[in-house]
Amino acid sequence: MSTPTPPTPPTSPNANIMEAIVSLSKRRGFIYQASEIYGGIRGFWDYGPLGVLLKNNIRDWWWKCMVECPPIGPDGHPVDIVGLDSAIIQHPKTWEASGHVAGFNDPMVDDIGVSRYRADHLYGLCPGLPNGTRGEVREAGGTDPGLPMPIATVLASSAGEAAEFFTGDKKTQKLFGIKSLERVAGGFQGQVKGRDFSGTVICLYQPEFKGLFNKFPSPSTGEVGKLTEPRAFNLMLDTYPGPIRDEANKAYLRPETAQGIFLNYKNVLDTTRVKVPFGVAQIGKSFRNEVTPRNYIFRSREFEQMEMEFFCPPDDALMWYEFWRNERMKWWLSLGIRPENLKFRDHDSDELAHYSKACVDVEYLYPFTAPDFGELEGIAHRGSYDLTQHSTHSGTKLDYFDQELQLKLKESGASPEDVKSKSRYIPNVIEPASGLTRAVLVLLCEAYRYDESRPSKEYLAFKPQFAPVKAGIFPLVQKDGMPEVAEKLYLDLRKHFTVEYDPKQSIGKRYARMDEVGTPFSFTIDGETAKDQTVTVRHRDSQLQERIGIANVKAFLSAKLGE
Amino acid sequence: MSTPTPPTPPTSPNANIMEAIVSLSKRRGFIYQASEIYGGIRGFWDYGPLGVLLKNNIRDWWWKCMVECPPIGPDGHPVDIVGLDSAIIQHPKTWEASGHVAGFNDPMVDDIGVSRYRADHLYGLCPGLPNGTRGEVREAGGTDPGLPMPIATVLASSAGEAAEFFTGDKKTQKLFGIKSLERVAGGFQGQVKGRDFSGTVICLYQPEFKGLFNKFPSPSTGEVGKLTEPRAFNLMLDTYPGPIRDEANKAYLRPETAQGIFLNYKNVLDTTRVKVPFGVAQIGKSFRNEVTPRNYIFRSREFEQMEMEFFCPPDDALMWYEFWRNERMKWWLSLGIRPENLKFRDHDSDELAHYSKACVDVEYLYPFTAPDFGELEGIAHRGSYDLTQHSTHSGTKLDYFDQELQLKLKESGASPEDVKSKSRYIPNVIEPASGLTRAVLVLLCEAYRYDESRPSKEYLAFKPQFAPVKAGIFPLVQKDGMPEVAEKLYLDLRKHFTVEYDPKQSIGKRYARMDEVGTPFSFTIDGETAKDQTVTVRHRDSQLQERIGIANVKAFLSAKLGE
Repeated sequence: MSTPTPPTPPTSPNANIMEAIVSLSKRRGFIYQASEIYGGIRGFWDYGPLGVLLKNNIRDWWWKCMVECPPIGPDGHPVDIVGLDSAIIQHPKTWEASGHVAGFNDPMVDDIGVSRYRADHLYGLCPGLPNGTRGEVREAGGTDPGLPMPIATVLASSAGEAAEFFTGDKKTQKLFGIKSLERVAGGFQGQVKGRDFSGTVICLYQPEFKGLFNKFPSPSTGEVGKLTEPRAFNLMLDTYPGPIRDEANKAYLRPETAQGIFLNYKNVLDTTRVKVPFGVAQIGKSFRNEVTPRNYIFRSREFEQMEMEFFCPPDDALMWYEFWRNERMKWWLSLGIRPENLKFRDHDSDELAHYSKACVDVEYLYPFTAPDFGELEGIAHRGSYDLTQHSTHSGTKLDYFDQELQLKLKESGASPEDVKSKSRYIPNVIEPASGLTRAVLVLLCEAYRYDESRPSKEYLAFKPQFAPVKAGIFPLVQKDGMPEVAEKLYLDLRKHFTVEYDPKQSIGKRYARMDEVGTPFSFTIDGETAKDQTVTVRHRDSQLQERIGIANVKAFLSAKLGE
Repeated sequence: MSTPTPPTPPTSPNANIMEAIVSLSKRRGFIYQASEIYGGIRGFWDYGPLGVLLKNNIRDWWWKCMVECPPIGPDGHPVDIVGLDSAIIQHPKTWEASGHVAGFNDPMVDDIGVSRYRADHLYGLCPGLPNGTRGEVREAGGTDPGLPMPIATVLASSAGEAAEFFTGDKKTQKLFGIKSLERVAGGFQGQVKGRDFSGTVICLYQPEFKGLFNKFPSPSTGEVGKLTEPRAFNLMLDTYPGPIRDEANKAYLRPETAQGIFLNYKNVLDTTRVKVPFGVAQIGKSFRNEVTPRNYIFRSREFEQMEMEFFCPPDDALMWYEFWRNERMKWWLSLGIRPENLKFRDHDSDELAHYSKACVDVEYLYPFTAPDFGELEGIAHRGSYDLTQHSTHSGTKLDYFDQELQLKLKESGASPEDVKSKSRYIPNVIEPASGLTRAVLVLLCEAYRYDESRPSKEYLAFKPQFAPVKAGIFPLVQKDGMPEVAEKLYLDLRKHFTVEYDPKQSIGKRYARMDEVGTPFSFTIDGETAKDQTVTVRHRDSQLQERIGIANVKAFLSAKLGE
């Protein structure tokens, strides 16, 4: 009944699907702009009555699959994973050891007196170059003698805007005075600011533009000479816990939950019964001071993560990497996401951090990245980097003596030196790290449907398990004892499921509202109910109705939610 | 079986119960000091594998009782409450409107170059005064002509230390050179720093000590002339979201979740089907930069709250205040807390904020406050203060037109002016605000038992519903097919309950560990199981064992957890 079908956009451009989702999410209480009555605060979002239910459903399912029912491992037994909830603010040395203080930066450019931009989000148009490869651009020479290439205009302040620019978003085109533009052989041609244009686009954050940013026009005002050179901007938000406000007391809001797990690796080993291999899982808020937060809740300054660090013997790390890669894809599919909207993207070796042996992203076909995919979860083989760093910086031994491995090595006839050296090690880490708030966005995108023929026009086809409200309970009219029967049914069901009772409005309007908020089932108590103890079940996706015994409603819902 | 019995302290002083609870909580993975491997960070705590389960159980129960199954209201129908999850960082104007920027302060005293203290936590000894009332002290004159009273020594830097001082904690006494001291007629007598002492204690944060703090000795070094006058210290942690670090971009980590609810009052009204009266409930982290965090997780700088704002017509506010007062006490009792450990404390009228019409605390008998009670939850009648403030500061209308009230007034024959003026109003708010992390502390204190006769000596008698792990599943020995049967049972049960499988160690040790972590039931698969399909159930509190069919284990657990 609830098998997902491909979303039908309200109109063709992908940008409009996002607008429709953002608008529906606001209108029906999924997601509000934070501090809206004060004009908002950029990069922060509040989850409304339905949004928090949706988010909690995903959160609880991840926790169930990780901590309560971890998957069966290669040996046929469930793997060991325990939960954790570490503080958002940790000792500042944490972030020195992790490398975040020195290296968690974005290149930032000041537009003096106006704004700031991510340097790698600034794109310029290079006219006259039908073949848009970088080499050819550089060779082309410039109209401005100070520039190695003819950047005519800085047109976009982000990859997103650049993409919109070339995919034909009307608003952006108007802003930049674009009349017509079409893609030709790696470049574009058309009219920009009333003049014929043919050329390509290039990111300004390139070694050959070093020292030349004051030659580029401001993306906001068009003025030349206002852009500073790119400089490193740390993405961690800082604050000063304690009564004294000095460098020694500066602390950071965590940019990831992972480090709280590494800090407690030894505590968990010492105070629980786990042995390597084991995992520690955590869900919680993180903060990143994105210079330009964008794409709704995709990249916000405050967000929620679901991260698990799996500690394993170095020799088994690649095996566990493959294991978690597969398990995580299965998990995303279990949310009801269509397989064609998910894919793996293996990182090239030159993308990997120096300590990392492998990394793969699970990507999703977001409306704002389409036809490309965008990041949803990263599964990283982090080697022994994190524990080694924390061991060095804290002076605490974080190596592990593997008794079972020692026994195995002895039995296999390994030399005493090998037995000794191999059975004590710093565990390797496999890290499946995903965003809870990003998962909310994916389920909203995935569930969104447009159907002109319905009273609601739009509906959300959530897999029933993740729907914020599982069922609406409605008396057909407010008389003849119907409200009493309906409220009794509601009071019984609410002990087991998140359900809603609503006695008002026409039944059609109530169904339409249930469609819009993605409630998979509605049960209506009508004139027949008193006679034969049956109610109408209305299915969200098919809009079909059937009658079942009022006594069977609970079992019906249980079965549907278990599907 | 699991009826709570009074805790038996390991030895008589209350301080030692806390030490025992802190130690057990660390040793068994409930609560770790945050960033312990870096020497810790004051006022921050991490919740370990069992702590996070305990915390989640309380969190989910509050959410269930508030959002999914709110109580039946005075009209016989369930009250309306919806959930919310607002951002930790909101627009800074939020905290100007709420009064936190101007008024959320503690009086702070600098001990120059050494430390800082809460002025109202500094206590001094006044010798020679057997009757310790403030009036008599002031009249007594001083040994130092600059002082209105003979404060001989500042002995304690907090109320907690002052309490320890007089209740005989050995470590504190040694620190302050106290040889002997006993309570006599409202004061104390004995030996301090080798000299005879008889006198009383007084808090230094008094109007008559204004301008005299440089006459008091430092509580840390004893030096005179190092304490500054008390000054206001704002308790909000601040940070700078966005690329520009200036006053305009300064924001705060919320010191309470409540304001996020007020900011969204209009959003909730506009986007859901609720009508006044209704509530909005939220669970989440808050931050307060306590000058001196203390008493374990009771007063920490990062903590978790469970707050609900109930919006109602002004004329019904006192009725709803009474309603929530009763409901909240019922809720705390539902956690298995013994009634004699909970009490109400009504705020005196001079304690109330100017806008508040009534406020009551639910207090708990913490080991560190005993024989006094300490705060656990506040239920406040906040009038229309918050919505009025946000309406004024944001310029957004937050009044409510009450159609039902209008109808009722018309029917009752009220004058057209009365109907008009009374049916549009800014709702009043009743706020039950409690600490989730404080609830964790209370359940740990409440569950702690000491019993010399047990192998574990200590155990945690959680009400089964809140126990982090509901059951241990054990094969008696690792042979004869027992592990296979036990693991199968575990795999079946874990879909429904948080359970643990452990095949190693002697069964006695496994039971002892279950006692220590508060697991109410253990199921052991032994030699009989293969013959008659029964298992042993061992009850944590009574240590009694009985046999039940392996097929009945799930039903047994369900029944016990529903008790």
